[in-house]
Amino acid sequence: MTVPKRFDWEKLQQFCSDVFVNAGVMRDSADIVAASLIQADLRGVDSHGVVRTAIYLNRIEKNMINPSAEILIEAEDDAIVLVNGNNHFGAVVGTKALDIALHKAQEKGAAIVGVKGSNHFGTGAFYVLKAIEKNMILLVLSNASQTMPPTGGIRPFIGTNPLAIGVPAGEEEPFILDMATSVVSRGKIIVADQKGENIPLGWAIDKDGNPTTDARDALEGSVLPVGGAKGYGISMFIDILAGVLTGAGFGKYVNNMYENWDEPQNVGHFFLAIDINRFMPIETFKLRMDLYLKEIKGEPKANGVEEIYIPGEIETLKEIERKKNGIELPSKVVEELIEIGKRYHLDLLNATISQENEHREALKEC
Amino acid sequence: MTVPKRFDWEKLQQFCSDVFVNAGVMRDSADIVAASLIQADLRGVDSHGVVRTAIYLNRIEKNMINPSAEILIEAEDDAIVLVNGNNHFGAVVGTKALDIALHKAQEKGAAIVGVKGSNHFGTGAFYVLKAIEKNMILLVLSNASQTMPPTGGIRPFIGTNPLAIGVPAGEEEPFILDMATSVVSRGKIIVADQKGENIPLGWAIDKDGNPTTDARDALEGSVLPVGGAKGYGISMFIDILAGVLTGAGFGKYVNNMYENWDEPQNVGHFFLAIDINRFMPIETFKLRMDLYLKEIKGEPKANGVEEIYIPGEIETLKEIERKKNGIELPSKVVEELIEIGKRYHLDLLNATISQENEHREALKEC
Ligand SMILES: NC(=O)c1ccc[n+]([C@@H]2O[C@H](COP(=O)([O-])OP(=O)(O)OC[C@H]3O[C@@H](n4cnc5c(N)ncnc54)[C@H](O)[C@@H]3O)[C@@H](O)[C@H]2O)c1
Ligand SMILES: NC(=O)c1ccc[n+]([C@@H]2O[C@H](COP(=O)([O-])OP(=O)(O)OC[C@H]3O[C@@H](n4cnc5c(N)ncnc54)[C@H](O)[C@@H]3O)[C@@H](O)[C@H]2O)c1
Repeated sequence: MTVPKRFDWEKLQQFCSDVFVNAGVMRDSADIVAASLIQADLRGVDSHGVVRTAIYLNRIEKNMINPSAEILIEAEDDAIVLVNGNNHFGAVVGTKALDIALHKAQEKGAAIVGVKGSNHFGTGAFYVLKAIEKNMILLVLSNASQTMPPTGGIRPFIGTNPLAIGVPAGEEEPFILDMATSVVSRGKIIVADQKGENIPLGWAIDKDGNPTTDARDALEGSVLPVGGAKGYGISMFIDILAGVLTGAGFGKYVNNMYENWDEPQNVGHFFLAIDINRFMPIETFKLRMDLYLKEIKGEPKANGVEEIYIPGEIETLKEIERKKNGIELPSKVVEELIEIGKRYHLDLLNATISQENEHREALKEC
Repeated sequence: MTVPKRFDWEKLQQFCSDVFVNAGVMRDSADIVAASLIQADLRGVDSHGVVRTAIYLNRIEKNMINPSAEILIEAEDDAIVLVNGNNHFGAVVGTKALDIALHKAQEKGAAIVGVKGSNHFGTGAFYVLKAIEKNMILLVLSNASQTMPPTGGIRPFIGTNPLAIGVPAGEEEPFILDMATSVVSRGKIIVADQKGENIPLGWAIDKDGNPTTDARDALEGSVLPVGGAKGYGISMFIDILAGVLTGAGFGKYVNNMYENWDEPQNVGHFFLAIDINRFMPIETFKLRMDLYLKEIKGEPKANGVEEIYIPGEIETLKEIERKKNGIELPSKVVEELIEIGKRYHLDLLNATISQENEHREALKEC
């Protein structure tokens, strides 16, 4: 059988949420996790989309995530809050921490929420977009399990710890920088390996620490921090703010979601929310942002460059396209989701676009 | 005459401070600016050391910096403060903003100070080191005049906007990441040009936007952001937080200190101070930092690598060495300082080390 490939985003999200509910997660939490996965797929960040459903389920089934945990505030002060996720889903813990940060920034002008006891929280853009809706600037950091060596090292010590920052604009699309601190994600190297292609020098080292263009050797080695020692330093400071400062794991004490089945991950996050209105009226700020973004976009372009993009713009364009045309998934992922559906008495095929189109076509015939 | 090259750091600092005082700057401000320059030289960041004395003086003389300005708080709230530097020296404005941030973080747990109406403020490490002494974590951002193109562009639009973050440790040296958002500083390209050497591909583009290994072509073109679009995004968000949000200049509205003599620079800064004690006892935090830093430093090293460094460590080692052996300056810089000394009735040669050594030797003979 050839599996369908194109899915309606809302139905796919419902399917994911239903799967999690049938696996014992409460509906509100299941909705958050499903929204985080689907949003990543919509925005073209496929590495953080529904492809993660399987591992998330595995971790619930093996008691490595506790979807009934109570997320608690452990310390609070005027401008800071410390949250213990108590091993709930990363996206659920992150969403709660975000709410606290936005609320407190509204009150105090700015707020920091440090988080420990969390899990893989998806993309940074997921939180940043919610803050933008509230006219807030948000900086989000998370640590992750070991994948990159320190500069001069040969084996993984720090994670590809993501950094995201979102800023609202007026008429222009918002500014959304959401990046791993590696040159490229491991996902891109896996794809090169599958296609039998080489990777550019500088992406990764082999297991002995030598620079390599061989994708297979790279996968047995480590991806490299972006920009050499600068990326290494940025990844470290994220580990410090999200991990060392909050009481979460850091370095080797952040457990690998795919490999460690003895202990929860103990991921840490760091949220900083800023109420723009305390600096200047939000309307003035948006005019200034629009001017800034328009001026950059209007810059002369290098040969062969069609457009100068603002960070986040490529993903925003993709989201518009995929909301309209559906999310296309690789057949391996579709097959996996079909299996998961069977295990939880749900039919993935209800979410396909082709079916919808058939219905529409059928309607026209009437 | 062959000019002396090695200078005692304290005497050199006194010389610089005296020059600024004789140029009409009040002693406390002059001391701050001189300390910022000498500290950069001590830490091996020669591009931000006494080599900047001449341009700072020029800008006072041409009324482009106002060393008598009153630095004012324009807005204040629980967790945020907006400071107007009113065109005082960057280092003086920055130091004042830092004091406010540390004080407020002590009170509230964390604090943001946004700054407008400032000038080139030297290195980020200058502020970060002071925060570390107070057991605070500090993030410092500043924008700068245009030197780098956006990804896909061909001419300068954003600055090499620096990002610095400092974190205290216990027995280990503190973590001090202090970086420009370019692949390398323009200074390194100038040096390559002077030596007639090529530069690696990826450092810069020529004036038409083509990648180049020719240092001269690179100087007529632009340096590139570190890590491609990621460095471009980081540089932009610094411009947004330090410039768009504070009411300072941003993009082309930050004037070039060397080229624009009609208007003040209107540089913006952003300080975030965090009181560690609000998250956990500082002793616990320092133990965690020590463990983290020791573990990284103990990682296996790649062939030919002698040491794995923590960000800031190379500069800290240099500072120890230069405090002992003196600061060596290129003869061009020495000649310029001698001229400046003459203009302000001061003798640079009092600060040389060789003289000191002669005295010491003479003493031994007695
Ligand atoms: N939770 C975790 O542990 C974890 C770890 C690592 C990464 N992630 C997530 O992975 C995702 C992907 O990260 P990535 O670094 O591979 O993304 P990426 O390299 O595709 O993009 C990084 C950023 O650069 C911007 N960008 C890319 N090209 C651009 C251009 N030409 N002009 C302007 N801007 C441009 C993008 O809009 C984005 O903001 C992110 O969502 C991140 O949060 C999560
Ligand atoms: N005021 C301004 O407008 C402005 C603009 C740009 C830069 N600057 C300053 O210029 C200075 C130099 O910046 P840069 O980016 O050229 O510095 P750099 O590249 O020499 O170092 C950047 C950072 O990386 C660390 N580092 C370098 N090599 C390392 C290694 N092997 N292992 C671990 N860490 C390592 C350093 O300790 C430092 O923290 C900074 O002080 C910055 O604040 C100021």
